[in-house]
Amino acid sequence: MVVTRVVGILGGMGPAAGADFVRLFVEACAGLMRARGEPVRDQAFPEHWLAQVPVPDRTGAIDSATPGAHQPLEPMLQALGRLAALGSRAVAIACNTAHAWHGTLQARFPHIELLHVAREVSAHLAAEGVRDVALMATEGTYRIGLYEHAMADAGLRCHLPLADERRQLMRGIYDGVKAGDMALAEACFSEVALQLGRRHGDVAIVMGCTEIPLGLQGSAAVGGLRLVDPARVLACALANRAYDMPSSPA
Amino acid sequence: MVVTRVVGILGGMGPAAGADFVRLFVEACAGLMRARGEPVRDQAFPEHWLAQVPVPDRTGAIDSATPGAHQPLEPMLQALGRLAALGSRAVAIACNTAHAWHGTLQARFPHIELLHVAREVSAHLAAEGVRDVALMATEGTYRIGLYEHAMADAGLRCHLPLADERRQLMRGIYDGVKAGDMALAEACFSEVALQLGRRHGDVAIVMGCTEIPLGLQGSAAVGGLRLVDPARVLACALANRAYDMPSSPA
Repeated sequence: MVVTRVVGILGGMGPAAGADFVRLFVEACAGLMRARGEPVRDQAFPEHWLAQVPVPDRTGAIDSATPGAHQPLEPMLQALGRLAALGSRAVAIACNTAHAWHGTLQARFPHIELLHVAREVSAHLAAEGVRDVALMATEGTYRIGLYEHAMADAGLRCHLPLADERRQLMRGIYDGVKAGDMALAEACFSEVALQLGRRHGDVAIVMGCTEIPLGLQGSAAVGGLRLVDPARVLACALANRAYDMPSSPA
Repeated sequence: MVVTRVVGILGGMGPAAGADFVRLFVEACAGLMRARGEPVRDQAFPEHWLAQVPVPDRTGAIDSATPGAHQPLEPMLQALGRLAALGSRAVAIACNTAHAWHGTLQARFPHIELLHVAREVSAHLAAEGVRDVALMATEGTYRIGLYEHAMADAGLRCHLPLADERRQLMRGIYDGVKAGDMALAEACFSEVALQLGRRHGDVAIVMGCTEIPLGLQGSAAVGGLRLVDPARVLACALANRAYDMPSSPA
């Protein structure tokens, strides 16, 4: 009998990405069971809770210079408090941009481990011998340097898209995935990914917004590129915590 | 500004089906927004919580004649109580067989509406003019007559698979989907579905176990059949409750 720990997922940013994160987490748990030669049974999965709560737009809040603009923090604090009350020992945030508030959230709940997506991804890539990374993300994620800092700490070079490519990413995220126009999303994302590949050669392209993998799923256009899904890496890290395993890169 | 109500999903039975149910619920919410001509935004989704808790095997408990065998009830009661404490006004159970305990669970929490999958599906099919239904399910679901009763109440004829076909369904569910062998699952499920189609003609085939649609996803073999996914119908019903809309069939 394997002892598991309760874990939580802070989602709703957007809800489709949160749902997909649970799928990735369940897959990661099944993978761990198989790797240990254990049968995959319903009862062998760790208890986990998904909170999908309405949270004001993260990039919008980061962009705004007014004092009250950090309004995403309040609903995230409330949801995280409830996940903690449900017994969660570790929590993953299913939104890259929301990590702008990671430090504040972690400080408020020191008894739970709040995973950090960019640190998990950077450790994972560094362990795989990657040196050069290109980052597809929201303006908010670029603004706070979420991945740039974590990657520098891990010894990785981080290449960013040009201004018009960033605008195209934002269009794919908001007018594409979030609004349900997946064809537009795929067109926007694949064009930027191909440009990054052309410019930087053999580079790992991090899809640093949870909506981007949803838009690129099954896209033939980017078949030759090395795409990294941070949600998958983060889901593996959360599964490791649930089975109380060392926090080695997924 | 649309007023939404908090809703819950009782999952973990199995966890992959619970994750998929959240995806279907999010899709259903987006569909409702589009149908009302509203933009689909993260903040327009209702707050919803997914509880994925370990629950002893449901069919095993129903099959057993010993008094202590109804052990699935306890973890479901606990999880439902927590979903209620989180503010859920309506809850869906992401497992057909677990509906054996629907009445007990609903009686314990009279202030929340616990949706009933078979009643939602029966109302949905009757409203579409369907008369004949074939039911793919677990032994536990057949044992309690979950769909048979609800369909009779809705004026539908319910056809059941033969004994060896039922065994094949159980194999596809347990050795297939729950154990991660999707090729085995598809083979088991598609053969039974084709037999039902051959035997009963123009019949709506209800995939009355949440694992069956996961195993039949994208199966070309059953392309000509009319397959009904109760999880999709239930997810639409839950979305209607979240937006406080009349509980008309999805």
